Amino acid sequence: MRLPIRAVTPETESAEIIGWVHEVRDLGGLSFFLIRDRTGIIQVTIPKKKVPAEILEVARSVSRESVVRVQGRVKAIDKAPGGREIVPEHLEIISTAESPLPLDVAEKVPAEMDTRLDSRFLDARKPRVRSIFTIRSAVTSSATAFLASRGCVNIATPKIVAAATEGGTELFPIAYFEKEAFMNQSPQLYKQMMMAAGFEGVFEIGPIFRAEEHNTVRHLNEATSLDVEVSFADHNDVMELLEDLIVHVYESAAKNCSDALEELGVDLKVPAKPFPRIPYAEAIEIANRTIEEKLTFGDDLSPAAERAIGDTVGQHYFIVDWPTDIRPYYAMPYPDRPEFCKAFDLMHPRMELSSGAQRVHDHDLLVERIRAKGLSPESFEFYLKTFRYGMPPHAGWGLGIERLVMTMLDLGNIREAVLFPRDRHRLTP
Amino acid sequence: MRLPIRAVTPETESAEIIGWVHEVRDLGGLSFFLIRDRTGIIQVTIPKKKVPAEILEVARSVSRESVVRVQGRVKAIDKAPGGREIVPEHLEIISTAESPLPLDVAEKVPAEMDTRLDSRFLDARKPRVRSIFTIRSAVTSSATAFLASRGCVNIATPKIVAAATEGGTELFPIAYFEKEAFMNQSPQLYKQMMMAAGFEGVFEIGPIFRAEEHNTVRHLNEATSLDVEVSFADHNDVMELLEDLIVHVYESAAKNCSDALEELGVDLKVPAKPFPRIPYAEAIEIANRTIEEKLTFGDDLSPAAERAIGDTVGQHYFIVDWPTDIRPYYAMPYPDRPEFCKAFDLMHPRMELSSGAQRVHDHDLLVERIRAKGLSPESFEFYLKTFRYGMPPHAGWGLGIERLVMTMLDLGNIREAVLFPRDRHRLTP
Repeated sequence: MRLPIRAVTPETESAEIIGWVHEVRDLGGLSFFLIRDRTGIIQVTIPKKKVPAEILEVARSVSRESVVRVQGRVKAIDKAPGGREIVPEHLEIISTAESPLPLDVAEKVPAEMDTRLDSRFLDARKPRVRSIFTIRSAVTSSATAFLASRGCVNIATPKIVAAATEGGTELFPIAYFEKEAFMNQSPQLYKQMMMAAGFEGVFEIGPIFRAEEHNTVRHLNEATSLDVEVSFADHNDVMELLEDLIVHVYESAAKNCSDALEELGVDLKVPAKPFPRIPYAEAIEIANRTIEEKLTFGDDLSPAAERAIGDTVGQHYFIVDWPTDIRPYYAMPYPDRPEFCKAFDLMHPRMELSSGAQRVHDHDLLVERIRAKGLSPESFEFYLKTFRYGMPPHAGWGLGIERLVMTMLDLGNIREAVLFPRDRHRLTP
Repeated sequence: MRLPIRAVTPETESAEIIGWVHEVRDLGGLSFFLIRDRTGIIQVTIPKKKVPAEILEVARSVSRESVVRVQGRVKAIDKAPGGREIVPEHLEIISTAESPLPLDVAEKVPAEMDTRLDSRFLDARKPRVRSIFTIRSAVTSSATAFLASRGCVNIATPKIVAAATEGGTELFPIAYFEKEAFMNQSPQLYKQMMMAAGFEGVFEIGPIFRAEEHNTVRHLNEATSLDVEVSFADHNDVMELLEDLIVHVYESAAKNCSDALEELGVDLKVPAKPFPRIPYAEAIEIANRTIEEKLTFGDDLSPAAERAIGDTVGQHYFIVDWPTDIRPYYAMPYPDRPEFCKAFDLMHPRMELSSGAQRVHDHDLLVERIRAKGLSPESFEFYLKTFRYGMPPHAGWGLGIERLVMTMLDLGNIREAVLFPRDRHRLTP
């Protein structure tokens, strides 16, 4: 009966384990192996004169990163990881690794990001890398449970679409039988259509596709988005929901992923609610105190501006009351000052995590807003139609899962938060 | 303070509700509305001589499926749904619906599937249709929680890929910047690569894309797949996991979706474990007892054969021990009788739900199997590479979420189990 390596303690009498050969050391009369599985690392010690010839034979031939089964007596020993080692009575190679390895799993030699991604399956054997994906898994699973507990319906919207969410740019075209189609940039229009369907609260965690040309440490061409939309809610309601979700996800990770966080050396601080709400006009002022290229009203926030504001605020915050002109057509203008709209961004001190708004739910205003963006209402007929038969007021947001994980764990490159990134130049593995 | 309609009881004194105008009836001195939200339906009664003129005005002008806010006194009344009605003190139209409606939400006139899907946002207002998606949501959320509780890591694999899982057919091509790429048919190769990464157990719920030409009531060109892969496991281990998952999902739906099940008239029977394991050779014999076009060894099961076996078995079952020749290259042949392999299908009496297998984990055997299928190992180098550096034995399966929901709820057409289906002819809405 195989034991997870973590379950083998100095008090265990004998154990069978299966794992990868993490390191091999030969000290003359003694051979040492470190064997790794997803739960931990254990030392296997082979006193050459005391073990059967067939074990010595296997020990001599086994290469690093091969999969082996080891069965033997457990001994308490201070110097070994976890204070114990196994002296094998049985040693068997289950799957042999070729030498040399394309990537050093023991991480004695740091590798470039491209080398790591080319051999992602080896890279992800590193306890540090696996820990990132353990936490990402906890993030998506706990977000699912949280939103379901708030009465939101877990939906799946199509990824193959006939029209773009925000006009014709940044789309990957598909040949869909004899028609042209696109990979969807965002579930935005579909989740709004579900408000017209009376669902009142929906969420989706799924892929989004953006044919953006730029290649940075915080953009991906295929990413995972957590999208939420709620009826009879305004921007303030869904900001509170987003705040609650962020706190819940941090608390879940702190509670359930302590080993992974320790492996990463991350001391996760659960952010305090409520997050500050900073109007766009004030955010620009804060940024302009320190940045060189000053912003004027109507500018998007530059990365330098985001950093300057983040440094000043020092925690998660919302930027609210955006100029209507620089937000999408579906953001609701304030009735009494239509040059501003009920849109918001959720910011981590390092970068933007989420965008949202109360949406325009009036058909004629929406047509006007689409036209004001230079788009054609005819291309949005499948969407506009849902505003003509009883569309309730609604609001929502989209949250980038990779950015959430990246900022939680203080990762330098968004590619560290996705198993198989897709960017301007990378389409494999 | 708005109340969900279900929360208004004959004992409530006064209530504010928001909902869609489900029906309007005018009986001379009295007007009746039925107002619907996602929790239920309530009658609003307007005694024309006793209410203020402004309410009468609004009541006269409101159209079916408009969104209204009603505030008023609640009265117990036997003949109304839920044994209560509201007499309004305030009535306000929040969003007006045009007339005529493209689809009858009150379902007095049954509509064709295409008409329903063209106006899916109205179709999904029907309590029956919404119930399907409430249950689908419970299925995916409870599957996520179940697999996380079994230690599986929730992963996201790329949907944009450079190579096909099973050769070059049935793929949608994408223009990915200057390269040709494809929408992924299945996470198969990626979840196996995560076994090489030492993750031991992974799952993913996400979209898959198949450019299949046929247009049937049980195929979609974009579907949702629940994929699982587990290391150090064989086909029997993952059949047990699949069985446990199915039972868990049925139990969760029975427990948490009783209203939706009642709305659909479904008396959900939780299937009993273990499901029968029927060898392929025996399954063919069972089918041949009743079907006209007899099968011979090596044939795939026809829909008629599936029905015949399903009628005989009368519950969920597995077909095991398939001929190696008709399964994918990654299915592991039995060492002692390599013409059979460790593959299985999970069957509902009506149709196949899931396919799985213990996988080939030996590199050279895998190359041989890929060649035997007439495919080129060179196209699979990104995958084959992961078998050369310590690939553990592993097994897994993929389960179609729409088929699971369709069979749970006895739906006639798979399109009823997906909000916005994509098929041979349908790309909108």
